[in-house]
Amino acid sequence: MEEDKVRGKAEASGWPARAWRLLSAIRSESPLIQCITNMVSMDLMANTLLSAGASPAMIHSADEIPDFTPHARALCVNVGTLSADWLPAMKLAAQFASQSAKPWVLDPVAAGASGFRLKACLELLELKPTVIRGNASEVIALSKASLGPTKGVDSSHESTDAVEAAKSLAQASGAIVAVSGAVDIVTDGERVVGAHNGVPMMQRITATGCSVTALIAAFVAVDPLHALEATVSALSIFGVAGEMGMNLAKGPASLRMHLIDSLYGLDDAVVHSRVTITSFS
Amino acid sequence: MEEDKVRGKAEASGWPARAWRLLSAIRSESPLIQCITNMVSMDLMANTLLSAGASPAMIHSADEIPDFTPHARALCVNVGTLSADWLPAMKLAAQFASQSAKPWVLDPVAAGASGFRLKACLELLELKPTVIRGNASEVIALSKASLGPTKGVDSSHESTDAVEAAKSLAQASGAIVAVSGAVDIVTDGERVVGAHNGVPMMQRITATGCSVTALIAAFVAVDPLHALEATVSALSIFGVAGEMGMNLAKGPASLRMHLIDSLYGLDDAVVHSRVTITSFS
Amino acid sequence: MEEDKVRGKAEASGWPARAWRLLSAIRSESPLIQCITNMVSMDLMANTLLSAGASPAMIHSADEIPDFTPHARALCVNVGTLSADWLPAMKLAAQFASQSAKPWVLDPVAAGASGFRLKACLELLELKPTVIRGNASEVIALSKASLGPTKGVDSSHESTDAVEAAKSLAQASGAIVAVSGAVDIVTDGERVVGAHNGVPMMQRITATGCSVTALIAAFVAVDPLHALEATVSALSIFGVAGEMGMNLAKGPASLRMHLIDSLYGLDDAVVHSRVTITSFS
Repeated sequence: MEEDKVRGKAEASGWPARAWRLLSAIRSESPLIQCITNMVSMDLMANTLLSAGASPAMIHSADEIPDFTPHARALCVNVGTLSADWLPAMKLAAQFASQSAKPWVLDPVAAGASGFRLKACLELLELKPTVIRGNASEVIALSKASLGPTKGVDSSHESTDAVEAAKSLAQASGAIVAVSGAVDIVTDGERVVGAHNGVPMMQRITATGCSVTALIAAFVAVDPLHALEATVSALSIFGVAGEMGMNLAKGPASLRMHLIDSLYGLDDAVVHSRVTITSFS
Repeated sequence: MEEDKVRGKAEASGWPARAWRLLSAIRSESPLIQCITNMVSMDLMANTLLSAGASPAMIHSADEIPDFTPHARALCVNVGTLSADWLPAMKLAAQFASQSAKPWVLDPVAAGASGFRLKACLELLELKPTVIRGNASEVIALSKASLGPTKGVDSSHESTDAVEAAKSLAQASGAIVAVSGAVDIVTDGERVVGAHNGVPMMQRITATGCSVTALIAAFVAVDPLHALEATVSALSIFGVAGEMGMNLAKGPASLRMHLIDSLYGLDDAVVHSRVTITSFS
Repeated sequence: MEEDKVRGKAEASGWPARAWRLLSAIRSESPLIQCITNMVSMDLMANTLLSAGASPAMIHSADEIPDFTPHARALCVNVGTLSADWLPAMKLAAQFASQSAKPWVLDPVAAGASGFRLKACLELLELKPTVIRGNASEVIALSKASLGPTKGVDSSHESTDAVEAAKSLAQASGAIVAVSGAVDIVTDGERVVGAHNGVPMMQRITATGCSVTALIAAFVAVDPLHALEATVSALSIFGVAGEMGMNLAKGPASLRMHLIDSLYGLDDAVVHSRVTITSFS
């Protein structure tokens, strides 16, 4: 862990270069990313991956997972429109990924919305996701539930709690945990890194959160040994695309379009001048 | 009813102010709207609600409804891509809404397309939707079916019949009934109000009808005691956004984008100068 | 066959006029096209059909097919997000179409991705699709599988093989086979025609392939006796819309928007000056 911290600090000034290197790797390698995701997000998620240079595959049937999942470079599981008939395939795919040390990313959308959903998220958690990305309340809900009621963080101070919840969840699960917000927070349970790019209006577009989770899967696919760094990079790149898109946008729908166009067109100079990442610990 | 009519007329001149007040309430309260909707419409529907200021939740599993539906301010049920495995959740959510006097809105997409679908719509009708919104043929099909074959309206004169069918359906079901068309018609079975905003090209964009139904749910959520007025307001606001979008559009896809941008950006002045609502009776 | 070839050559110079005539027929007749398609493509597919003037219906429940499919002018089946619970309805609808000599089009997305999917595609193949459209690897996978392992084409020379695989598949299945690529290839097993329109960036937008398959269904719906010509025309028209869109696009998302706008606005002059179709044999 100490070693990680040292490396982390040494790299702090190198974040934009790393983000650019990973985006370039996605563009040249076009990693196949399997997405088992909610029905609201499929279109934007696939277009996000395509515009970044990755190759999305929305394949969710349990009948196909044994044949298909081994060919994917990473897996993205998102419980947004969860139902009992989709859950077994999510778990089976996660199991395949886990067993073959293939990176997989969990998006616990609305984790606290129902007992059924929380239980499903906890079951997925047991299959050792490489990265978990959610908003503050999702991460807090998941952290509380995974630690048990007596050890839960106090939900009355949500903004500070999100970082603590993320650290606890990372420690308990072994996953990198990312919390989206005004500043995105990423932690492995020890180190805490903040990704500062993005614009508030992205929250007025459905599935931007889901899509950045899929982008994280693509970034981790091309650098599986540095999942924290890949996660931070993905969040920053998506945020920068949002900032560039915002320059042209007149509202959420045109932002959505310009964001994807910008992600497709991002170059070295923009990435280097805009990516803003800081280490908090 | 007489009282309602008097109030209706007194308010006629106040329609733009009411529409603006309700839109402002949505923006400030951000009501949570549960949508159990077809797979074609999910993206545009969620973005419509977000751009209006509401908080959409596409949650359709029966396993989640007992936990989740009580937290929603309104429910939108749309049968567009109906299948036997989705219907029970639609009915369960409608039941929860109905029992707790929470507003819920039914979109009987293609109600007459099959016996299975018509039967499903009739079963949903029994769960007392607050508002039903469809096009002329959907409302006529539903009205005929709910009144029984012998009392059905004559489908050979569709344009006049739509108003009569809407009134009959409203009386039989107790719901506010809205019929989309060149002029949108809204009735409680007695009063008939027309919303004149909108542009024809909106019909060349998939899911605009579905999306305005969800917007109606958001409007009724912030004014549940005046469901007719809220419905008319939602239709007008969406129509005005379409008109503003049309000023910039070069075809259906750019209209779709500008419509959502416009809905996000609508201000008091535009709403007051453009909202056109008339009482027909 | 000889007769077909002669007719084909005689018509070579008339391709733009034919494409325009078919597009005009879609605009005036507004044929109802039933789509049982993957969840990623539903939005773009419906908007593609609407912008071309057709009337899309995304109806996928087996409970509705006996009532509904007879009213559709053509059927589009796409296995992109296939699962065991959707397959029976795909087969039932294909059966209805086949029995009533209604055109139906198969999009064997990722046919080789799993044994389950390949088997499903082969079962659909037995229900005699009018047209099959895929990319080179999909058509090769399907051709190999339908001919049996010993007669399969050599997958090591993919670009030439695609044409041979398409011809074999067309002969074995009785369908028109279209292979999307830098030049789209269409064959009935004897004639081979190339459609040269389109731009590479269309591949960076999800569901453009799926959407052109649906457009083929609409074109074949208005000229069912000339399925090869209708297929080539649809591919060309979509490609021309892409070229017109590309003039205004700054990336994949704006291309997507301008493509649909362009498809809506295409006129006789543009179609005549741009449609480029050649006979290869």
